[in-house]
Amino acid sequence: MKIYFVSDGTAITAEVFGSAMLSFFDVNVEKESVPFLTTVDQARGFCKQLQEEDERGDNTLVFFTISDPEIRAIIESGNSHSYNLFGDLLAPIEKALGVPAQPQAQKAHGMKQGVYDSRIDAVNYALANDDGVSIKHFDEAEIILLGVSRSGKTPTSLYLAMQYGIKTANYPLNEDDFASVGLPAVLRPHRAKLYGLTIDPNRLHEIRTGRMAASKYASPRQCRYEIDEVEAIYRQERIPFLNTTHLSVEEISTKVMAEMHLRRNRS
Amino acid sequence: MKIYFVSDGTAITAEVFGSAMLSFFDVNVEKESVPFLTTVDQARGFCKQLQEEDERGDNTLVFFTISDPEIRAIIESGNSHSYNLFGDLLAPIEKALGVPAQPQAQKAHGMKQGVYDSRIDAVNYALANDDGVSIKHFDEAEIILLGVSRSGKTPTSLYLAMQYGIKTANYPLNEDDFASVGLPAVLRPHRAKLYGLTIDPNRLHEIRTGRMAASKYASPRQCRYEIDEVEAIYRQERIPFLNTTHLSVEEISTKVMAEMHLRRNRS
Repeated sequence: MKIYFVSDGTAITAEVFGSAMLSFFDVNVEKESVPFLTTVDQARGFCKQLQEEDERGDNTLVFFTISDPEIRAIIESGNSHSYNLFGDLLAPIEKALGVPAQPQAQKAHGMKQGVYDSRIDAVNYALANDDGVSIKHFDEAEIILLGVSRSGKTPTSLYLAMQYGIKTANYPLNEDDFASVGLPAVLRPHRAKLYGLTIDPNRLHEIRTGRMAASKYASPRQCRYEIDEVEAIYRQERIPFLNTTHLSVEEISTKVMAEMHLRRNRS
Repeated sequence: MKIYFVSDGTAITAEVFGSAMLSFFDVNVEKESVPFLTTVDQARGFCKQLQEEDERGDNTLVFFTISDPEIRAIIESGNSHSYNLFGDLLAPIEKALGVPAQPQAQKAHGMKQGVYDSRIDAVNYALANDDGVSIKHFDEAEIILLGVSRSGKTPTSLYLAMQYGIKTANYPLNEDDFASVGLPAVLRPHRAKLYGLTIDPNRLHEIRTGRMAASKYASPRQCRYEIDEVEAIYRQERIPFLNTTHLSVEEISTKVMAEMHLRRNRS
């Protein structure tokens, strides 16, 4: 089964939503995005391709989000399994909001300078404050992620910045910190912003082995030791923390947002 | 108008889809995500909150994606404007795929180790190969983004890695490169992977001023000069390129994916 995500924009909405729908089904599918389909000719060309695939006996399914009625009609006619993702909901929501839908409004929305800047600033901030490289800007941080090396700090920092425009710093806890009593001095002024990540020692061993095989750094014993120490710090200092072993970056980020009551800096 | 995105998972699907729907309407709304709503008690608590807001005369609208029928029923009963985002489409898609929807399948999907790793690897690769800091791994890159400082290389690299698991390097073109003839030697072996970013000089001036006001680096003249030079290189060397001035990171990334025929390394 071949699944197309077709859109006059990035097709990200069709992709995210369509993929979520498909995740309810235990089927193997091939996915392909068709973004920026904005002309009648492109629509006809795409339908021609669909028909050829149908004639070859390939099953295809199309999720689309298209504003232009003429183009939408062509896509709908091209496949018996074409789903207009906005189709059924637009009317009731018009009613709920009490204003008519304006297809053109969406394009205008595509890019809000302010929003864009807040996200890019946050990404640059996350990069500049990754892995404790620069601790002098911790006061700017909305959240400071703690954890041992390879427990998920950096991807989570970048995801929070990219998706939500949240200024995220992260600080790697290591043996120096384990040796000293209480929190590292640089973190003490920022207690309310601290959030800990932890991970199953065996999983950490796997990840570190992929990076530096047969090293002390990657040894099961070292991984166990570091995780024991870091979780002890979280408990002693009453720092909220999360085990990332079975979570995707999206799941980690949204759990952190919820627990720390962070609000996106973008519309 | 207050909009809630409610889910038994991250709520990202509800958020992306709901926000796309709302972008058709020229209304100011306050958005709030309610992720990981997985119990009847949580659902009742949320509905209670909705009712209080209704009584205060606040308008609320709820987009939700919930697998459990009992919890779903509670959410649906809680608000006259609750929209089950999967509701209308699941049945037809069951028919199209010829297999029944399995709510539980989704959770299993939540996190695929292989997929996760490919994305984290790609993010780590993008970080290690950001801004030309390490050119020795260019042969591993699926794409190498070119551009002057602040033209959007880094956020695009990270987005491509995070969202699509694509190993993206980037190389900043600067005066040394403008002075020399032809492509920088380090790029020549990778011609097929090169993609250029450019930006309106005035916008570049704005961005650089925010970073280093009243510097030569940020001066309108320097920005114009660098953009002229970089676009000349793209044209001479027949490197495909894109103007990022009015595009979001998502739009840049999906256009690059489409033009370079890149395929996501994740399901």
